[in-house]
Formats: sequence, structure tokens, C-alpha cells
Amino acid sequence: MNIDSIPTRTLRAHPEQRAIDIIDQTRLPHALHWQRVSTLEAAAHAIRAMQVRGAPLIGVTAAYGLAIALGDEASDTSLQNAAVMLRSTRPTAVNLHWALARMEAALGALPPEQRCNAAWQEAAAIAEEDVAQNTAIGHHGLRLLNEVIVGDGKTLNIMTHCNAGWLATVDRGTALAPIYAAHDAGVPVHVWVSETRPRNQGLLTAWELEHHGVPHTLIADNAAGLLMRAGKVDAVIVGADRIAANGDVANKIGTYLKALACADNGIPFYVAAPGSTIDFACPEGADIPIEERSADEFRFVYGLDGHGQPSALRQLPDSEDVANPAFDITPGWLVKAIISERGVCPASADGLATLYPESRHG
Amino acid sequence: MNIDSIPTRTLRAHPEQRAIDIIDQTRLPHALHWQRVSTLEAAAHAIRAMQVRGAPLIGVTAAYGLAIALGDEASDTSLQNAAVMLRSTRPTAVNLHWALARMEAALGALPPEQRCNAAWQEAAAIAEEDVAQNTAIGHHGLRLLNEVIVGDGKTLNIMTHCNAGWLATVDRGTALAPIYAAHDAGVPVHVWVSETRPRNQGLLTAWELEHHGVPHTLIADNAAGLLMRAGKVDAVIVGADRIAANGDVANKIGTYLKALACADNGIPFYVAAPGSTIDFACPEGADIPIEERSADEFRFVYGLDGHGQPSALRQLPDSEDVANPAFDITPGWLVKAIISERGVCPASADGLATLYPESRHG
Repeated sequence: MNIDSIPTRTLRAHPEQRAIDIIDQTRLPHALHWQRVSTLEAAAHAIRAMQVRGAPLIGVTAAYGLAIALGDEASDTSLQNAAVMLRSTRPTAVNLHWALARMEAALGALPPEQRCNAAWQEAAAIAEEDVAQNTAIGHHGLRLLNEVIVGDGKTLNIMTHCNAGWLATVDRGTALAPIYAAHDAGVPVHVWVSETRPRNQGLLTAWELEHHGVPHTLIADNAAGLLMRAGKVDAVIVGADRIAANGDVANKIGTYLKALACADNGIPFYVAAPGSTIDFACPEGADIPIEERSADEFRFVYGLDGHGQPSALRQLPDSEDVANPAFDITPGWLVKAIISERGVCPASADGLATLYPESRHG
Repeated sequence: MNIDSIPTRTLRAHPEQRAIDIIDQTRLPHALHWQRVSTLEAAAHAIRAMQVRGAPLIGVTAAYGLAIALGDEASDTSLQNAAVMLRSTRPTAVNLHWALARMEAALGALPPEQRCNAAWQEAAAIAEEDVAQNTAIGHHGLRLLNEVIVGDGKTLNIMTHCNAGWLATVDRGTALAPIYAAHDAGVPVHVWVSETRPRNQGLLTAWELEHHGVPHTLIADNAAGLLMRAGKVDAVIVGADRIAANGDVANKIGTYLKALACADNGIPFYVAAPGSTIDFACPEGADIPIEERSADEFRFVYGLDGHGQPSALRQLPDSEDVANPAFDITPGWLVKAIISERGVCPASADGLATLYPESRHG
């Protein structure tokens, strides 16, 4: 399965059936399973349970979830109630709020009987824009990577965290878009894929890269620093769940540690995200709500027996206290550049204003 | 099970049966299983397969493994061959080399017929010294922690990594010794326990602390930075597998990332280890060999299904490329102090010389 020949995107809309099909990402990398979503509740559950995940894909799924929720005549109340339910699923990724606000603004201006059809059209527009924006991120990111390449034919070693590939979007990905662009351009690329505990989204990234033919190596999150000190990492690219107005970045828990290791080793740390991930109403990272997820994500463990074989899946006692924050904040000064659909800029208020001057006229 | 009422230490010697009993740590925290070790090969396997782990306990187990290997008349050749086999089990923890060198020096000076008995005595002496040294580390560390305490009755939040508790030693632990000392002294202590992928030794630490009654919370390794930025960590204490002459520290993979986050947040980062962990013959961290362990430690994963329940244990394809370095290097400048049985010193050549002046007369 080549990325250019993938038969479908991560989400298939069926407006005539008032349903969408999603890839149940909790079953990857072991099974590629499409799941039908035809109720508001199922859409909210899919986002909450991380059947779909990744800030851009969450936004698109929420938009379609709103379309699914609307009957032939959608009152202001039903529109608002659906948006409230979807908005409550996950707190950190701002694309969710952005997509719902855009849907509400577009639909609120219409008479009730036109809202349902318009909702499907607006959700489709958001999905199409996502693909176009990620393609642009790929192009801008490739320019940056070309600056990092030190010699003809030398392999470029890029580290990423979590999954910000096509699975996290409608297509192409954010952090992986420049990597795919480099690979497609014939640049020899190798990717260090961080496992990303506790939900192991690194396995999604490995699965994506494998099917796209991009050489990669899976590592424990803990190994990032050693590899950087050993000179085995030329650049780090991650996605984002929310970028504050001052350039601070909320992304999957563990991102900040990689950014620190980059700083200590003189390695560029890039954040790739569309404009919808930037929250100009949020002054700084400390203002971004951090989702605390269920301790159950830790409760099931396996051991290796004395022969290196896995022991059965076992459950930690319920009394075991667990903290499970899903995101952390990387201060803007640790970020060498933000790569968006509009180009590349420093991770600062002034930097963001060069790409999004309209944010200064709000 | 209170730490003070544990019926046995981590290792029971039976000289008359030429065997030892170890706790098979690959079965913890799910089962406390004592395993008989009565051959050289079994001792080497126990170390290699991490049935025993932790630098001090590896050293003691190797010493007993040598005793087990020796017959009534132990020739120079049989002594050397046994030491070679044990030394080859794991490359990074220098306590293994230190214990075997000490055993060889003590036994080599004796006639062959006296070596077997002497080996059991010397191994027992090493085990006893380990307990005494760890007790001293606890006392010295408690003095340091008393400086960190900011107010009467306020809980002291300490983070650790991997397991450097009594399970990693004969008793008391290294990094956990000051924590146990503080807890026993009535200081309210709470410990952030890092999962420590890929082998999850954090679960051993949680198990230890639970049975000692020390409040603690299990976290993903990735969460360390966020908690520090949020002001929820007062100090970090880790153990060490080897400390170079310049104060650089080899410890479980991921340690370096925690040290970086400490530096970025003004949090003291301490390393607790006995003198046998310091390798004065090793100039700096870059000279310490880093063990690369089997990719199998990653191959078995579970997912969470759409209902948050664990899916079955599944195996990654063998084609999945995995890198699995077991240790990393934390440069001495990131270490606020080394805590050894002799006291507390800066992590530098001059600092180490204040505690170990004999190292300058080698």
C-alpha cells in the first residue's frame, strides 16, 4: 500500500446515508477495520475512545458528527446541543473547537431546513482543506529539511513522536508530510519512531511508514536522548494539538522531553500543524487545558518471563495510583520553527503574525 | 509486608547446598517467586534475562555465581573461565566487573582447595557491605532531602526512574534508600514512579513502595517533563549502573531526559550509588559501553479496544525494525550531587576525589 495509492482517506462520508466510515485506530496496527458511524453518540464515542485521534482528524470527525446529528429541520437548540456533546469529548486539541465553531457559524446563518445538507457540505470542505493544507505543509517542510541535509546521498535521520501522519488527518499528515515529501523526492530518509506510551501511537506511525516504504526504527520514548547524544538524529518533527498565541505548543505527552534533548544537542525541533491548530485566543501554554485520561490505559501490562517470552496480559491492582496526562507543553523557545500551510515561522507571537497577520486585527 | 519486616533479603545463600535462591523479578509485580540457582549457567542466565537486575544485585549475584562454579579444588583456569562467563552477561553495570575482580583477587591468592569456601565467604561479605552501604546512602540522602523540604508537614514529591530500590540491591536500595529513610523518619513523601519502558521496572518500584506504605503514583516516562513544569516535583533521585571518573552517569535509558527536565525547571537531580559503581578507569560517559538488548522486549504489545478494554497480546511483525539501548548517559553537569556510602559530592572528578581520595593515587 503506497501512500499515493491508498484507496481511501481516513474517513469516508456517505451523506445520502447520513453516516461516515472511520478506521478504528484502536485496532491498528494489527487490523485495518472500517467502522460505520451513524449517530451523534457514536461520533462522540469514536473521538473520546481514540478510535479516531490526531488533532486534524478529530476536527473533521466532529464536523461530520454534527452533520450526522442534524435532522431535516435543525433547530438552533439541536445544533447547539450536538456541538456541546462533541466539544466535551476531548479538551486539548483546539481543532475540535475550531471545526465546531466553523460549522455553527456556517449553519446558524441558514434557515433550519437548509442546515442538514449544508452541514455535510461544510464538513466535506473542512476535510478537503485539511488535505490541501497538509500537502502544503509537506512542501514547506521539505524546504526546511533540504537545509538540514548535510551531504549528497547521506541519509537524513528524523525523529518523530506519537502519530502525526495521514492517520491523524484526512490524508498526508502534518509532521509526516515533510517526511513523505522528502521520501517521494528521492531524499534518503530514516525515521526514529517513538513508541509513545501509554497508547503506543508510535506503532501507528511505524505502520504508516512501513506501507509507504520509508525506512524507520521503533524505539522506546526513553531512548530519544541517547540517540541524539550519539549524533544519530538530524531533526525532530512533531505535530501539535494546540499552539498558543505566544508559540508554546501542546502536543502528545513526552514532546517537551524531546524538545529539551534537541536543545541540549543542537538539533532543530520543528512543529508541523495547520492554522486551525493555532489558538490566538490562548495567550500561552499554561492556559491550555491538559487532558487527564483514564488510569485504565496503564492497568494492563505484560512481563517477559525468564526465557524472554511474554507472560500473559495481567492487570495491575485497582489500588495502584496512576496519573495519565495526555499532553505536555513545549515552550516556544525550544521550537526552531513552526511549519504551517502558509509557510515557516518562528514559534513566537511575532513569528505567527508573519504568517497570520489577520490574528493581529481580531 | 513492611520493608523492616521482610523475612529475607533479595538473595538467600545456601553454601552447604552450593546454591542460592533469587527472586525471579521477571514475575514481579504479579508473583513473588523464589528460584533456586545451583549452576554457573543458571546464574549467568538469571543476570542476562534480568531475573535479577539492578547494578548492585547483579554484582552480588555474580559473586555467588562464581562461588557456585567452583569445585572443591578450583584451578586458576576454572576460576577465570567462570569469571569470563559471568562478566559477559551484561556490559554496562560496572558492579558486575568490580565484584568479579574482587572475587578473583581474593581467591587467586589462595591455594585451590581453599577457594570454594573462601568464595562463599567473600560473596557474603560483598552482600553484607551492600546492605551497609545502602543504609549509609539512605542517611546521607535524607540530609539532602531535608534541605529540599520547603515547609513543615508539606509533602515532599520525589520522582525516580526504573527501580533502584531493595529489589535492585541486597536490601534497602540506592535511590530509594533516602526515600525509605525519609518515610521512616516521618517526613511525608510521595513518589512519582516512571513506568520505565521497555521492561517496566517502574512496576517493581511501585510494588516495593506499596508494601512499604510509601504513597506513590505511576506515570508514563513521557509525563516527567509536564509534572516538573507544573511544580509537582521537588527532587529526582535515580541510581546508576556506572559513574565515569568525570562524574558522567550511565543509568537506565530515559534518565538523561529526566535530568534535562530537572535542569530546565530548577529541580535538583541526584544520583545515589555505592563506590563500586564508580569506574575511575573510565574517563567519561562516552567511554561507557551501552548494552543493546533484544528487540523482543518490544515485540509484544496490547491495544485498547473501542471500549477501553485491552485487546489480546499481539506480536509485531519480525520485520519491524527496533532499537533497544538499555542505558543512556547523563553528563555530570546535569547532576546536582552524587550520594554514596561515604557522603555527598559534586558529579565531577574533583568532587569524586573528595569522597574517594585513593582514586587519585592509583
